[in-house]
Amino acid sequence: MGIDPGLTRCGFSVVQAGRGRSVIPVAVGVARTPSTDDLTARLLGLSKAVNEWMDDYQPDVVAIERVFERGNVSTVIHTAHAVGVLVLAAAERGLDVQMYTPSEVKKAISGNGRADKKQMTAMITRILGLSEAPKPADAADALALAVCHCWRAPMLARQAAVAEQQAKQLAKQKEMIAAARANALAKES
Amino acid sequence: MGIDPGLTRCGFSVVQAGRGRSVIPVAVGVARTPSTDDLTARLLGLSKAVNEWMDDYQPDVVAIERVFERGNVSTVIHTAHAVGVLVLAAAERGLDVQMYTPSEVKKAISGNGRADKKQMTAMITRILGLSEAPKPADAADALALAVCHCWRAPMLARQAAVAEQQAKQLAKQKEMIAAARANALAKES
Repeated sequence: MGIDPGLTRCGFSVVQAGRGRSVIPVAVGVARTPSTDDLTARLLGLSKAVNEWMDDYQPDVVAIERVFERGNVSTVIHTAHAVGVLVLAAAERGLDVQMYTPSEVKKAISGNGRADKKQMTAMITRILGLSEAPKPADAADALALAVCHCWRAPMLARQAAVAEQQAKQLAKQKEMIAAARANALAKES
Repeated sequence: MGIDPGLTRCGFSVVQAGRGRSVIPVAVGVARTPSTDDLTARLLGLSKAVNEWMDDYQPDVVAIERVFERGNVSTVIHTAHAVGVLVLAAAERGLDVQMYTPSEVKKAISGNGRADKKQMTAMITRILGLSEAPKPADAADALALAVCHCWRAPMLARQAAVAEQQAKQLAKQKEMIAAARANALAKES
């Protein structure tokens, strides 16, 4: 599941990883909360929306855009409030949450960390074999996040495996050295 | 209930408004989530803590510090995630949430919007008749927020009543003018 977080518009998408790099689209949509409502009502509305999506599609993992310190500060803070509610919904279900920065998503999808909205929408439309471009931009962004995760997950898993392997090797070496040291000390005394 | 929001340390307090400006302390505490845990686990921990406090004390209203765009951006974003979770807990119970900026709280408690931590702690200790200063600072801040709300709530209620009165008057005048205009037009034709 991919989420482009926001309070005014929040993009949701569900995809399924196919063989190799193929990704199958399942659902996409946008939840809105009126900016005239107070924060309490908006966060409650968003929480209901994300929980409905999770109930309906039972995702295995949630890919969500990391909030970035750019642009309008008040928008950033509102988006960060929304992320708190969205991540909590995943946490309550024990779902794995992966965060990606906008440039990580752009790089994964288009090969260019600075791709513009138009390029991104065109790539996502092609990758998922859609007959027309997903709208609004938040819907396209949510799909891009989900695809980004599908493509990066195997790499992240490989990296984790390598890190684990290295940690084991390191632990073994430490033991070896400790044993040799104990041996040497025993001989000295 | 007063909440000084945070992910590493979140201050909670419960007070009861007495007669006039008297405020009776009920409870104060701090919930911590380890910074080594991932965001998912931390937000879940915070959500459990705030829900326990709300279950235990059944507050009528929640006063929470408004996140401000100062200092370390990553801390601001983390705090904003926490606020999302805290406000959601209140929203799920239908509780009224009031947000105050740090300077509003300082001004309400000490008369000075730039009071330092030491002054604020001394004032809160005196106002609530505590035998020693509340610790850590997040606990004192949570108490300050609760007291700030107790003192400002009657004023906010008065302001709301005045605004309602003015709106009614304005609507009446509009009606009066519309009636006079219709009358005049009828005479002309």
